[in-house]
Amino acid sequence: MATQGKVITCKAAVAYEANKPLVIEDVEVAPPQAGEVRVQILFTALCHTDAYTWSGKDPEGLFPCILGHEAAGIVESVGEGVTEVKPGDHVIPCYQAECRECKFCKSGKTNLCGKIRGATGVGVMMNDRKSRFSVRGTPIYHFMGTSTFSQYTVVHDVSVAKIDPQAPLEKVCLLGCGVPTGLGAVWNTAKVESGSNVAIFGLGTVGLAVAEGAKAAGASRIIGVDIDNRKFDRAKNFGVTEFVNPKDHEKPIQQVLVDMTDGGVDYSFECIGNVSIMRAALECCHKGWGTSVIVGVAASGQEISTRPFQLVTGRVWKGTAFGGFKSRTQVPQLVDKYMNKEIKIDEYITHKLTLDEINKAFDLLHGGDCLRCVLTL
Amino acid sequence: MATQGKVITCKAAVAYEANKPLVIEDVEVAPPQAGEVRVQILFTALCHTDAYTWSGKDPEGLFPCILGHEAAGIVESVGEGVTEVKPGDHVIPCYQAECRECKFCKSGKTNLCGKIRGATGVGVMMNDRKSRFSVRGTPIYHFMGTSTFSQYTVVHDVSVAKIDPQAPLEKVCLLGCGVPTGLGAVWNTAKVESGSNVAIFGLGTVGLAVAEGAKAAGASRIIGVDIDNRKFDRAKNFGVTEFVNPKDHEKPIQQVLVDMTDGGVDYSFECIGNVSIMRAALECCHKGWGTSVIVGVAASGQEISTRPFQLVTGRVWKGTAFGGFKSRTQVPQLVDKYMNKEIKIDEYITHKLTLDEINKAFDLLHGGDCLRCVLTL
Repeated sequence: MATQGKVITCKAAVAYEANKPLVIEDVEVAPPQAGEVRVQILFTALCHTDAYTWSGKDPEGLFPCILGHEAAGIVESVGEGVTEVKPGDHVIPCYQAECRECKFCKSGKTNLCGKIRGATGVGVMMNDRKSRFSVRGTPIYHFMGTSTFSQYTVVHDVSVAKIDPQAPLEKVCLLGCGVPTGLGAVWNTAKVESGSNVAIFGLGTVGLAVAEGAKAAGASRIIGVDIDNRKFDRAKNFGVTEFVNPKDHEKPIQQVLVDMTDGGVDYSFECIGNVSIMRAALECCHKGWGTSVIVGVAASGQEISTRPFQLVTGRVWKGTAFGGFKSRTQVPQLVDKYMNKEIKIDEYITHKLTLDEINKAFDLLHGGDCLRCVLTL
Repeated sequence: MATQGKVITCKAAVAYEANKPLVIEDVEVAPPQAGEVRVQILFTALCHTDAYTWSGKDPEGLFPCILGHEAAGIVESVGEGVTEVKPGDHVIPCYQAECRECKFCKSGKTNLCGKIRGATGVGVMMNDRKSRFSVRGTPIYHFMGTSTFSQYTVVHDVSVAKIDPQAPLEKVCLLGCGVPTGLGAVWNTAKVESGSNVAIFGLGTVGLAVAEGAKAAGASRIIGVDIDNRKFDRAKNFGVTEFVNPKDHEKPIQQVLVDMTDGGVDYSFECIGNVSIMRAALECCHKGWGTSVIVGVAASGQEISTRPFQLVTGRVWKGTAFGGFKSRTQVPQLVDKYMNKEIKIDEYITHKLTLDEINKAFDLLHGGDCLRCVLTL
């Protein structure tokens, strides 16, 4: 390739400061070093985690940076020692790596690969602990090991999932975060069985993916909980069978759900990131076996609490990250499921814009109407 | 039997008021009604739950009452419709019933039978919602559906486990509470696998039974945590391989354990009932898979808390009651295990007294030296 081994100058949306509009810049993207892959990002969606870091509320957020972690693209070049992908491969960058060698990967118990966390957590690449992005000589931090709000990005090889080249990248980019998180929370973390009653707190993309996963798992009742009544009609299409708006009730929402379900739900999922709702989600579970999964990401420093009696009487409190999916192994499988029409993606895409409209896309994300806005780069 | 159908007058220890010495009284024990069993209690041990209710800190505690829930005896007579035990059977009264008919029993997911909870929770029998105990005409409340600090007690038929008549009652009485709670926390609730690292907070009877269960499950490291160094020598005999005294460390105990175990333990057990320790027990678990089980009973109104990130990164928070054992089915199996020398009991019995020394027995229970004190009735 003409660009291989050279710096590529391309457009990227740079977050210079918390809460200030992103700036479309000509960014210089260095070639991939050993164990790295440079990817041409063709489509990226926005997720609330991008918005959270951009807001400045994330104490680990570093500026200036290039946000973005739900995307798809094509490998432009690879660094030394990279064998599993080659230029031209269609890929989804994954914020959760899978090295297949570390204690975590080998445990068979978790998807939380630890190999590159020490670098991606501080916005750099592992090889030299520096960034591959710069603007007029100033380094720009990476974000979540993905930084997909750029026409080209550099990621670690353990963070790229090679997918079916026939898959439409403008759709499967959503398999980089929200949809797998919801599906996997049901399938991998909670392991919902056929006939179960399920409650879902928050009917955004992740909550709807939980509903879709629960429906596929054969859940009998899928109760959607949200403070916005407009979300119910859409949620029906994803499998939600009943809708509860906490604002319509005087009683605490956990009590409303316990009353509706003769003792509580078998599984609940918190897909908002609100610690009070996390408590309600646990406490609406059935004594003896109800399991609550925290899917949403709470703001830094906040804590969950409950009476220990809730657990001693048989409820289980869990959480999930990327739905427990092993990224490099299972994201390609999810792409195949989409191609076989076993999972939805199109229905989550409510808006399409271009990279230079990214600030408008963030505004849309905060409106109740938007699930996912996909940007063409 | 000469006593069948008649009121029996016998000795019992009555708790008239919170925190006041128990009084040995002549108590009248009415005959069993439909679905009830009158049991001659031969041996009873004391447990911290008795002491907790006696202290007055249990808001559901009712006085006057007859405490006690870890005992063994012989069926004296049975009420109408009782088919599974008959006079002369050796039994262990179980505070956790097993009716085999309710939603809980049929779920296959929990031991928390709900059938008689509505009566035992308020100190009465289900049939007429009255007590079978009285002293000079004044009713005395039942406790936990067992009230074993009496030479005769009346329990629901779903609460008696029929055991091998060869088993020594002065030993197997311990299978009414503490020992099964610890063993079952490991075997049924956590399901500890061979090679696991385990931390146990609190090395009383329950904590030592956890150690014994973990050793039987093949745990590699069994780390005992207690603020009393004298407990270590004894703990070794139950399988504890390492001992940590939080007082010897400046760092929070969860950090000490994470450092000792290259990232945290696979399983932890809180056997004290202290909500701060419950947090430490969760947070000393390994990212990705560590599971913490709350075994201890916290004081009313207290709450556990942690950052949700602890769960989102793969830790699981659970609890257990009676170790998840189904009482009528599994207590007899535990008796058989004891008879086959597969589980310890003798080693937990540090003191033996008689019923009229019960106040002294409570004093002993609060000393660090006593595991179980067995009273002869």
